[in-house]
Amino acid sequence: MPIARVTRRVHFCAGHRLYNPDWDPERNRSTYGACSNPNGHGHNYDLEVTVEGEIDPKIGYVMDLRALKNLLGEAVLSDIDHANLNVDVPWLQGVVPTTENLAVAIWDRLEGRILNARLVSVRLWETERNSVEYRGD
Amino acid sequence: MPIARVTRRVHFCAGHRLYNPDWDPERNRSTYGACSNPNGHGHNYDLEVTVEGEIDPKIGYVMDLRALKNLLGEAVLSDIDHANLNVDVPWLQGVVPTTENLAVAIWDRLEGRILNARLVSVRLWETERNSVEYRGD
Amino acid sequence: MPIARVTRRVHFCAGHRLYNPDWDPERNRSTYGACSNPNGHGHNYDLEVTVEGEIDPKIGYVMDLRALKNLLGEAVLSDIDHANLNVDVPWLQGVVPTTENLAVAIWDRLEGRILNARLVSVRLWETERNSVEYRGD
Amino acid sequence: MPIARVTRRVHFCAGHRLYNPDWDPERNRSTYGACSNPNGHGHNYDLEVTVEGEIDPKIGYVMDLRALKNLLGEAVLSDIDHANLNVDVPWLQGVVPTTENLAVAIWDRLEGRILNARLVSVRLWETERNSVEYRGD
Amino acid sequence: MPIARVTRRVHFCAGHRLYNPDWDPERNRSTYGACSNPNGHGHNYDLEVTVEGEIDPKIGYVMDLRALKNLLGEAVLSDIDHANLNVDVPWLQGVVPTTENLAVAIWDRLEGRILNARLVSVRLWETERNSVEYRGD
Amino acid sequence: MPIARVTRRVHFCAGHRLYNPDWDPERNRSTYGACSNPNGHGHNYDLEVTVEGEIDPKIGYVMDLRALKNLLGEAVLSDIDHANLNVDVPWLQGVVPTTENLAVAIWDRLEGRILNARLVSVRLWETERNSVEYRGD
Repeated sequence: MPIARVTRRVHFCAGHRLYNPDWDPERNRSTYGACSNPNGHGHNYDLEVTVEGEIDPKIGYVMDLRALKNLLGEAVLSDIDHANLNVDVPWLQGVVPTTENLAVAIWDRLEGRILNARLVSVRLWETERNSVEYRGD
Repeated sequence: MPIARVTRRVHFCAGHRLYNPDWDPERNRSTYGACSNPNGHGHNYDLEVTVEGEIDPKIGYVMDLRALKNLLGEAVLSDIDHANLNVDVPWLQGVVPTTENLAVAIWDRLEGRILNARLVSVRLWETERNSVEYRGD
Repeated sequence: MPIARVTRRVHFCAGHRLYNPDWDPERNRSTYGACSNPNGHGHNYDLEVTVEGEIDPKIGYVMDLRALKNLLGEAVLSDIDHANLNVDVPWLQGVVPTTENLAVAIWDRLEGRILNARLVSVRLWETERNSVEYRGD
Repeated sequence: MPIARVTRRVHFCAGHRLYNPDWDPERNRSTYGACSNPNGHGHNYDLEVTVEGEIDPKIGYVMDLRALKNLLGEAVLSDIDHANLNVDVPWLQGVVPTTENLAVAIWDRLEGRILNARLVSVRLWETERNSVEYRGD
Repeated sequence: MPIARVTRRVHFCAGHRLYNPDWDPERNRSTYGACSNPNGHGHNYDLEVTVEGEIDPKIGYVMDLRALKNLLGEAVLSDIDHANLNVDVPWLQGVVPTTENLAVAIWDRLEGRILNARLVSVRLWETERNSVEYRGD
Repeated sequence: MPIARVTRRVHFCAGHRLYNPDWDPERNRSTYGACSNPNGHGHNYDLEVTVEGEIDPKIGYVMDLRALKNLLGEAVLSDIDHANLNVDVPWLQGVVPTTENLAVAIWDRLEGRILNARLVSVRLWETERNSVEYRGD
């Protein structure tokens, strides 16, 4: 059977501050610039999750996108939408919420929960101009 | 010579209904949800076709995009734009018109018709949130 | 209090065919072109609904956008999303489903159901290139 | 001379929380939902500012958009980009940072600072789906 | 009959240079900045044309958008697409090709050529961030 | 450490003309069509540059995107934004400014200037419909 890649894009908004607690404020400022402002800021994030697999010959799907949508809602969005990424999310404790670290953490939330298809990419847009892709490497 | 990938994006609108005639309506409903509504619905599709090849040293093109545009118009869009994908398209007979199956069928329409460049990807967006990529695998 | 305009944008997909049953197929074809293809096609519609009113001094809202979102879901989207606009929608019976007629019909669905704010615009995009705005005139 | 409207669109990201300090947490929750989450969240805002005036017959501009861009940078973005709207911005003290209130506050920052053209609209998008327009009424 | 506004959006690309021949290079440079670079530059323009009129009760159109598309192609795009706006376009002779002046010139091309509907707006986007609207005032 | 890909998207506008000086005008016209119009035209280009590397465990970045943004500004945009690509850019001398050739030339400008991360892709959009990706092959 042909193998295809299916992508679902979802949106969430969240607050964050880039700050490494092992460093003093000056080093945080020089490393992260305005992203380390003490009271935080936030973004509308776009999240694109891609899975790969054979197209089911009877159904014509690699995977039911409603199932992927539901999984993203339950395993990811319910925790991070309208949340503060430094404080509110159990699976981000101890993680500086850069786009890179968020992409890896979201991958870890999803891997193992997707049945019958293989997770191949998590791409996260922080703004229209900046994005990070993690492929599990 | 350097090898590059050139992508042409085109748009079309079409009607469809997800329905496997081997199944009864209930199984279709549980498999496809609202996408199996009896009277059909439709979408504005975005189609991105990517070809790869050496850049011609005199012309500076991998492939003339006007030729690719014309090929897409003749081999694909003339049949499916403003059409009903379940009924009107000879090369979709017997195919449940999921995005996956459409991407594979469009690949099959194009492969062999592209000269001097190699077809590497057909990506089809059914909505801004859902897309499928087929790479011939 | 200052008066502001608040817009909520929602999406739906639907099938339709432009066809006036009082005319023969040829006149339909010459009037509507490919939009009158017998088996129909469809679109991803973008719907922008704008209401105007005073900003509540304590809340800071003209209107709770969750309430507007819910109203759009119940009064409009639940009937037309994934539907065939020629057949499935009670409040579109006898209406040729042009973008103009849809915008007016959606206005009529909403007017009177919005409390504490004034409906001022229904804008409907059939494609990225074509849209209609109806302001109740 | 012909009169035209010129629009400049800029982007900023900021954190906020919808919370009226005169109310208890429960009333805030019932009014603002997830937008009142205690630790805040944030958005990528799009801001569109429109001015109107005669087209200068020699220059061909209503207003130099570089001047408008600079004004927006100095009077608005330098204070709110990468900031927390509840805490960091002097001209938002005591304001619940709803999109409506932000649009009015931005209008008030700009009016009087635009020379030779008339401010006619401040439109602020909180997400791709929600926006507010304030016209000074 | 209800009155609606119908908008058609088209694209073109063109080269231009902002330069007033009555001025010396220095004054042009201080007025137009990099837009007066001697060898010119260019843009992908988005043009939105809006007409207003009664919805025809039998057809359901204010105006056939194919007719508007054809008019835009013949009266505007055929002259300015892939052209140099300072040199190639008869109806732009003597006009500094600012977005304002282009919007007015396009209005003048269209007015009188639209039958059965009233031209109400020409909006021209030079970039995603800058646009001008002309309403005939 | 996990390996991620970070993309920065920037915009520029430029003028160009597709023309091979070794050929007569007729051959240029038949090869490049309207893109060889004698007085040139132009585009708003979107440039996406992707680098790959390990995520720094303390900082959480593959690479500081401000550094990438600055590099793109200094090594690429300062030369080509608001420029004529046939005339004004030293590192494009003798190059027919097709999107393919531009992507390769931009790659060559960047490679070797990016420290601590590996350049993996330069993608250049000439219009919303046409793009070229060069991966150094």
